[in-house]
Amino acid sequence: MNRPLALDRIRVVLSRTSHPGNIGAAARAMKTMGLRDLWLVAPESFPDEVATARASGAADLLESARVVGTLQEALADTVLSAALTARRRELSLPRLQARDAACELVARSRDGIVALVFGNETSGLTNDEVGLCSLPVTVPTDPDFSSLNLGAAVQVLSYEMRMAALGEAVATPLDVPPEPATHADFEGFIAHLERAVTASGFHDPANPKRLLPRMRRLFNRVRLEKEEVAILRGMLTTFETPRKRG
Amino acid sequence: MNRPLALDRIRVVLSRTSHPGNIGAAARAMKTMGLRDLWLVAPESFPDEVATARASGAADLLESARVVGTLQEALADTVLSAALTARRRELSLPRLQARDAACELVARSRDGIVALVFGNETSGLTNDEVGLCSLPVTVPTDPDFSSLNLGAAVQVLSYEMRMAALGEAVATPLDVPPEPATHADFEGFIAHLERAVTASGFHDPANPKRLLPRMRRLFNRVRLEKEEVAILRGMLTTFETPRKRG
Repeated sequence: MNRPLALDRIRVVLSRTSHPGNIGAAARAMKTMGLRDLWLVAPESFPDEVATARASGAADLLESARVVGTLQEALADTVLSAALTARRRELSLPRLQARDAACELVARSRDGIVALVFGNETSGLTNDEVGLCSLPVTVPTDPDFSSLNLGAAVQVLSYEMRMAALGEAVATPLDVPPEPATHADFEGFIAHLERAVTASGFHDPANPKRLLPRMRRLFNRVRLEKEEVAILRGMLTTFETPRKRG
Repeated sequence: MNRPLALDRIRVVLSRTSHPGNIGAAARAMKTMGLRDLWLVAPESFPDEVATARASGAADLLESARVVGTLQEALADTVLSAALTARRRELSLPRLQARDAACELVARSRDGIVALVFGNETSGLTNDEVGLCSLPVTVPTDPDFSSLNLGAAVQVLSYEMRMAALGEAVATPLDVPPEPATHADFEGFIAHLERAVTASGFHDPANPKRLLPRMRRLFNRVRLEKEEVAILRGMLTTFETPRKRG
């Protein structure tokens, strides 16, 4: 599968992050979802070995991260930016849920860079910072416990961005499907089953009850593969042929 | 907004977790999304103050967590279970993406408890563990850097479960669905099948090939009903007891 172009146009901006470990966690979260472009606005401590340790395999994102003094600078060349905000604000735009925001950002990435902006761990984004962004975004956490930490928030949003970007790309199935049983294979199996359960005494053709319709219903539901039919019939053959015991 | 019922029927199972910090991170991730039912299979260290510290506001989930010795115990009363797996396996069921699996699990939660199963941080789930679950699930990470850590994986899946639960309308099915087989019913059937095919000579325990994993895969796919299990086992019993002929 080709890498969707949109992934190279998504920027993650962390504003005034207090704990360098969270910068590392964010880098790792981004990289698992194929995002690479990390900007840091006035981080309290960066570079920092704690950040590098938490990033584990994603230290390359920290090395290429851009450090700037203001959110304005980080957003200057973007065409759309979304601000993560946990609480409803006065006079704010209607907040979009993460999934809808991701769709909108990915759609707009055709025109240029789009940004996801995350605030300080304790205080979040200021009203001014939210005001600089085009749309406020929220993750629909449990109202009784909405304390998504920074790394977790970046993980969920990066995941949604990847899902939106892949959804735009050509969908390819994950795995090659095995060869399905044909209708004739299926009927051959059911007929074989009928013979075997009649011989074993489980099924009485003179008083059939609902056994065969039920078995049809069960095995129809499963969409048998050709090879599975062969195995099931092999099994039935051994049941029909009592083995010499002892 | 009322709390969706589905959230109380979703169990998170962590199998053989090495680092107690990850148990705490998982508890926090669950709680942000409104999940509460945490089961731990043979954790390396639990309870542990590192877990409690990482859980921060979610220590209540650790206190109510159930610790068991085997995955079987954790799944015994579930009606559907999904195993997170990073790699493609031989003979596996087709893997579902997290989003599709969440929809399926939430839909099935009408019938009872559904489980999400996560393996050890380094080695993941064993083939046997995956075989105990009804469906394999994958998070579509970047193929070049798929190292989603345990807390992050639980975060993404819990988020998808919450989104699916919130998305489910008050829809009530038109027909009363038949009672599903539990995990214990399923395992009882597989054990019975194993005895029968061993006695018939179809299966050689000394040279098992891939028969039983294939049968697990087949019957897992069909989502057996309780009554169907009873019929299949009745059938096996007659196959085991050769009838007097003539």
